[in-house]
Amino acid sequence: MRKNILIIMLAAISIGAYSQQPKWQTLFNGKNLKGWTKINGSADYKIVDNTIMGISKMNTPNTFLRTDKMYGDFILEFEFKVDDGLNSGVQFRSNSLKEFKNGTVHGYQFEIDPSSRAWTGGIYDEARRGWLYPMTYNPAGQKAFKNNVWNTARIEAIGSSIRTWVNGIQCSELLDDMTKSGFIGLQVHSIGNKELEGKTVSWRNIRILTENLNQFKTSENLNIKQMNTIANTISEREAKEGWKLLWDGKTTNGWRGAKLDGFPTKGWSIKDGILKVHKSDGGESTNGGDIVTTRPYKNFMLKVDFKITEGANSGIKYFVDTELNKGAGSAIGCEFQILDDNRHPDAKLGVNGNRTLGSLYDLIPAPKDKPFRRGFFNTAMVVVKGNHVEHWLNGIKIIEYQRNNQMWEALVDFSKYKDWPNFGNAEEGLILLQDHGDEVWFQNIKIKEL
Amino acid sequence: MRKNILIIMLAAISIGAYSQQPKWQTLFNGKNLKGWTKINGSADYKIVDNTIMGISKMNTPNTFLRTDKMYGDFILEFEFKVDDGLNSGVQFRSNSLKEFKNGTVHGYQFEIDPSSRAWTGGIYDEARRGWLYPMTYNPAGQKAFKNNVWNTARIEAIGSSIRTWVNGIQCSELLDDMTKSGFIGLQVHSIGNKELEGKTVSWRNIRILTENLNQFKTSENLNIKQMNTIANTISEREAKEGWKLLWDGKTTNGWRGAKLDGFPTKGWSIKDGILKVHKSDGGESTNGGDIVTTRPYKNFMLKVDFKITEGANSGIKYFVDTELNKGAGSAIGCEFQILDDNRHPDAKLGVNGNRTLGSLYDLIPAPKDKPFRRGFFNTAMVVVKGNHVEHWLNGIKIIEYQRNNQMWEALVDFSKYKDWPNFGNAEEGLILLQDHGDEVWFQNIKIKEL
Repeated sequence: MRKNILIIMLAAISIGAYSQQPKWQTLFNGKNLKGWTKINGSADYKIVDNTIMGISKMNTPNTFLRTDKMYGDFILEFEFKVDDGLNSGVQFRSNSLKEFKNGTVHGYQFEIDPSSRAWTGGIYDEARRGWLYPMTYNPAGQKAFKNNVWNTARIEAIGSSIRTWVNGIQCSELLDDMTKSGFIGLQVHSIGNKELEGKTVSWRNIRILTENLNQFKTSENLNIKQMNTIANTISEREAKEGWKLLWDGKTTNGWRGAKLDGFPTKGWSIKDGILKVHKSDGGESTNGGDIVTTRPYKNFMLKVDFKITEGANSGIKYFVDTELNKGAGSAIGCEFQILDDNRHPDAKLGVNGNRTLGSLYDLIPAPKDKPFRRGFFNTAMVVVKGNHVEHWLNGIKIIEYQRNNQMWEALVDFSKYKDWPNFGNAEEGLILLQDHGDEVWFQNIKIKEL
Repeated sequence: MRKNILIIMLAAISIGAYSQQPKWQTLFNGKNLKGWTKINGSADYKIVDNTIMGISKMNTPNTFLRTDKMYGDFILEFEFKVDDGLNSGVQFRSNSLKEFKNGTVHGYQFEIDPSSRAWTGGIYDEARRGWLYPMTYNPAGQKAFKNNVWNTARIEAIGSSIRTWVNGIQCSELLDDMTKSGFIGLQVHSIGNKELEGKTVSWRNIRILTENLNQFKTSENLNIKQMNTIANTISEREAKEGWKLLWDGKTTNGWRGAKLDGFPTKGWSIKDGILKVHKSDGGESTNGGDIVTTRPYKNFMLKVDFKITEGANSGIKYFVDTELNKGAGSAIGCEFQILDDNRHPDAKLGVNGNRTLGSLYDLIPAPKDKPFRRGFFNTAMVVVKGNHVEHWLNGIKIIEYQRNNQMWEALVDFSKYKDWPNFGNAEEGLILLQDHGDEVWFQNIKIKEL
């Protein structure tokens, strides 16, 4: 008998040594808002039955109830419930700094979205880049949130890995390193419609874990699409999926001038992981000229992060054949247009906006309400599967078309490409970054061949 | 024993009374061309091993070895073999009349086509309407013919029913009543290429049956698509398949003026099973105006036979909403263009031929080598399955497009329809025949709702 007790005791001690209980810290005491401060807006928060209830209000910007403490790596859990019609969210690694938009709250947000769009659990970069993980990436995760009842949320932010769950279902998986620490903040979204006044969003059982995170973090779920924004890297997951860097972030390897054997000796530069095309006269390939990949691609997903300077024009072309245009101007191929729609005159030319950012240049206009990040890097994605082609901007599909058919020919015949035989129908082609005489920055150029 | 013999004898007599043997007549005696005459061209025919061998020759039109006798209803069988590269055929119910193109052989032809197109067994109307039964209607039948070996052929022409077989496989099924009687003729096709000179086509075992045809005819195969050209009729098969006359051939029932409650009192007339729009000033809806169906259609196959006068312009529109254009001109909808491409100036306008016959007007050009029958009725067919639309001309698909998508919007925005909101995207619409101030004849207006 005594022997058995001893064994049990020893076992208990040894388990304890390997698996401690998580040391959750409660962020809300259920009684008052000790440790929390309201900033940015003037919506009200009140405490009802151990719950923080935010109440929407007209004529105020987004309001946040923020923790006074800052958190870097953590696992955060809370419950939330929201009235239909009210958008909300929970900030993390967020900040309010005099030097950034005069103290505007900015940073990662766990989205709460009771609308039919159903993006709850997605990750939004408040007051900065906008959507980092729109729930278009994870349709299964869109079903996790339930309207008009309490939902559980979990956020794991450990190093550059940021992941979210709703009701135990993983919603997002992001690799991002823009901000490493900040406060937690409960958002009451601004409203533009008087009918939404008085709608509420509530939180309870808010707790955070900051120690031994590797022990308590959730194991990887390969079914969840991972987004990686970390400059010029291929994550383990991306490598497994077949993604490769099309530009290594440092050298000109794999690229040449569209009309040259080698890389242009002027007009382009590489520094700090950014590939820059320089400002010249705003003309088409009049300075360093376009650059192209040294080999062609057939079926692929191509991602290119680009950041424009004011009024800039550039583009990403594909199905490019540098033998076609031996004269002046850009090499011939289909173009994901890059443009400052607000400031470059080309945005008003063409037909119905078919020369605006993200458009299939001069052929198919991108929608007017596309998710452009002014002042930040944007991710252009081109997907080619045979004759089916898509343009995506920051995770949102903005263009979809089929080539090699009568509608395509008819469309091309209306456009400035009408005189190029068989335009856009090549089985494969080079990928091109355009020199249009304006400064544009590129990074994270990745390709996955299909 | 004697009883059994008696029973057998009685049985034999009674079977004999009900099923006679077919009385085949041999058309070629195996030795000479008695009963046959060469006309129309000067290619040579010689007799080799009980076989008639036709030999291709440069600088002669199509040559025919015709029977001196004329045949109305019959079942014809023969064997044939053809060299690769040489097109040929067997005429039936064909004629050579001083008053028709100065004696040019014309009439039904059993096609022999060893090319990769593989239309052997199809029915062509020589020197008249062209393809009556292109083998696009019967892909399975296209596999019946074998290159470089003897093939068996069977033609059943009984009343208005014309059917063909190759190697026992049914190839065509046509209802047509243009010509009821004529000669049989073995064709050696004209050649335009010296390399084809001396190529041969051979026939043997040619026999015809003209009595008790109903007894010996092949029973119906519902898997073979039936074409019916008989004016303003719905065949039993068509009725079974769901086809209905959209115009009864006699009255204005089911139609009204596009801008009227009733049928136009001028500009249109009905006589002898033909619906005519009259010649006026060549303007758009300036005389009687367009006519439309009194109810809308959603998913359908629409057939309209049309015959143009010299230089004429008209059209068949669908997805028409007569409420859209309350001003002058034609009602708004997608248009299967009807035009005399050779003589109407609109053929040269628009972009790359997108205003020519069969085109989706001002949007998608029909191919230049479409099968138009000058001087005869042509069959326009429009197929609508949701957003997928096709234009067919005389059995050949000439246009195919998808509406309600970005490419469609982009295409429309380039066209003259750019200012009509949501052009071409209606779920359903009226069907319209256009008054463009030129005389055009219509008949056989049929619809099958899908």
